[in-house]
Amino acid sequence: MADQDAQSTVGFEPPALSVLRWDEPPEGPVLVLLDQTRLPAEEVELVCTDVPALVRAIQTLAVRGAPLLGIAGGYGVALAAARGYDVAEAAGLLERARPTAVNLGYGVRRVAAAHREAVGKGAGDEAAAAVALAAARELHREDAQASGRMAEYGEALLEELMPGRGYQLLTHCNTGALVSGGEGTAFAVALRVHRGGRLHRLWVDETRPLLQGARLTAYEAARNGLAYSLLTDNAAGSLFAAGEVDAVLIGADRIAADGSVANKVGSYPLAVLAKYHHVPFIVVAPTTTVDLETADGTSIIVEQRSGREVTELTSWQGVAAGGGGGRAVAPLGAPAYNPAFDVTPPELITAIVTEEGAVSPVTGAGLAELCARSSQVTIS
Amino acid sequence: MADQDAQSTVGFEPPALSVLRWDEPPEGPVLVLLDQTRLPAEEVELVCTDVPALVRAIQTLAVRGAPLLGIAGGYGVALAAARGYDVAEAAGLLERARPTAVNLGYGVRRVAAAHREAVGKGAGDEAAAAVALAAARELHREDAQASGRMAEYGEALLEELMPGRGYQLLTHCNTGALVSGGEGTAFAVALRVHRGGRLHRLWVDETRPLLQGARLTAYEAARNGLAYSLLTDNAAGSLFAAGEVDAVLIGADRIAADGSVANKVGSYPLAVLAKYHHVPFIVVAPTTTVDLETADGTSIIVEQRSGREVTELTSWQGVAAGGGGGRAVAPLGAPAYNPAFDVTPPELITAIVTEEGAVSPVTGAGLAELCARSSQVTIS
Repeated sequence: MADQDAQSTVGFEPPALSVLRWDEPPEGPVLVLLDQTRLPAEEVELVCTDVPALVRAIQTLAVRGAPLLGIAGGYGVALAAARGYDVAEAAGLLERARPTAVNLGYGVRRVAAAHREAVGKGAGDEAAAAVALAAARELHREDAQASGRMAEYGEALLEELMPGRGYQLLTHCNTGALVSGGEGTAFAVALRVHRGGRLHRLWVDETRPLLQGARLTAYEAARNGLAYSLLTDNAAGSLFAAGEVDAVLIGADRIAADGSVANKVGSYPLAVLAKYHHVPFIVVAPTTTVDLETADGTSIIVEQRSGREVTELTSWQGVAAGGGGGRAVAPLGAPAYNPAFDVTPPELITAIVTEEGAVSPVTGAGLAELCARSSQVTIS
Repeated sequence: MADQDAQSTVGFEPPALSVLRWDEPPEGPVLVLLDQTRLPAEEVELVCTDVPALVRAIQTLAVRGAPLLGIAGGYGVALAAARGYDVAEAAGLLERARPTAVNLGYGVRRVAAAHREAVGKGAGDEAAAAVALAAARELHREDAQASGRMAEYGEALLEELMPGRGYQLLTHCNTGALVSGGEGTAFAVALRVHRGGRLHRLWVDETRPLLQGARLTAYEAARNGLAYSLLTDNAAGSLFAAGEVDAVLIGADRIAADGSVANKVGSYPLAVLAKYHHVPFIVVAPTTTVDLETADGTSIIVEQRSGREVTELTSWQGVAAGGGGGRAVAPLGAPAYNPAFDVTPPELITAIVTEEGAVSPVTGAGLAELCARSSQVTIS
């Protein structure tokens, strides 16, 4: 009995963070989302019973993050099929919800195609809906698996670089379960190191202007019991100078064919600091983030966002809803330079870790090989 | 007449920003302060008719900035003398208003000593009060002159480094008229370059966590008609990478004997970025900022401030009043690392510009020579 007790204690895990789940109460199937605009103050679930509700959740950023949007879109199509709505119409509404989100369109089209194929083969409504749901679940499962594999490869890389010890890791922006079907990208590596008892501390950059680090990464770190500290982006330099950072782990929004990485603004200064202090700078992203059509960093177009994100302080709800409506902290009409991303060249990157393995040093040939190895259907 | 018109146009200057001034309305002398807690939204003057009002202005940060506090303290003693209050008691109140502000104590003691000496020599109340006022004005004048000379030396250095051209300059925190009896330190250099028609742009870091760049430097830039843009501290890296920064100009809170510079957190990452991009990194500060008793950077104790400055968003009034009372943007109880300053070693600094000239490369011997040259009585 003592053994059994010990076993159940060892096996205990806090309830996993459910960012998005399919549920089937007696009233009919629903898609349940964690409302990310309410974080970190409250964990509130949004229950979507139809596609217009899901479209609204996407537009208000209640659900966000490229891979997660693809999964949400896929389940949205399955929801329309299960509820007996016009699937083609629902797919159109979902695809247009955020036109620049490529993953959203991919997820929607993949599940809609599976449904159409089933209907074409003579399946009834119920059977075709089951096929659509299976396709959405497959997409979800693939993304979760990619997270798990990135975490394994990332941990193995840290062990290779710094054998037999624990680490203080620094991260920027939000790369955890909130943007993924699994446990994320860079954050998933930190989480795996934590579970292995070797995370001494996760340093969390607040990530101005939208504070994804303070609002979301700190929330995920706290939720998972990590030893973490939040800091202004300015304070990272002091940590490097004091030898308190063993490695930097970040995600990526797009990786060019030469290994240049576009990621949240503030990543490039960290890469320069890491180089100056001989600290590994590691990018963690699925192979679907690699865009072989973009030759190099200079070809990446960086989105310029509203200056109001800089000149006004808003509550987190305001931030999540796109900024504006806050209290001015700068003179009225102050001009602001507000790029959403920056680009880190491959010579500043120690390694790029994908679900197919790591490439280090970062070369175009190495990246192309990893992408070729990725044969499974993944969210692009 | 046409010539005269042209002359008057050329000679036109917008009303200078009056951060602190002595006034003598019929009701009696007063010290008039620009209320810095109301910036940038409103320019509101605080009229202090006695020392307790001034003490309150100091404690609420309506008046702030090391050199300016010294000047305010000096005028406070003069005010007590002119209004017939007990000068020694007033001096004590002022000195204790912010015990860690060394400049405040210096200004108070210097003017109180002048007053005491006059009384000792048999001067009547009115004559002694006039001596105190003259001492405060002398202190004010010296600081303004130091600003002017730093601006000249700084401009000459830029011309030497990059002859015959205009510049895009990047600055951090607030170093203008709001902290000085004159036009400041680093900001004064940018202002002089602007007046010479050679400032292409001043890039203003917002300077988290207290946003002195957004609230105060952007205000001073707008007030003086500079071409400027505000940015998050994260976005500076993108500017360096794009070749849009010709030099970095910052102030200093303390300079060690070896030339290590303690300044607002975020300065060190800029120095590393500047080094990596071969951009001059220039520190502008009076010789009184050099602390020959502190041997090197490792001897400088860096103040750690409340994590609430990082975990909560406050209005600018809240920020000015010391943080707190804002809306949480991080999980409740999130631990935060919040050093107020960082330390930049001399090898990352192109030059230190003082009112006695510039030292470049930065060496302990060069600094000591500048300090020895500074024979005038200045605020320490």
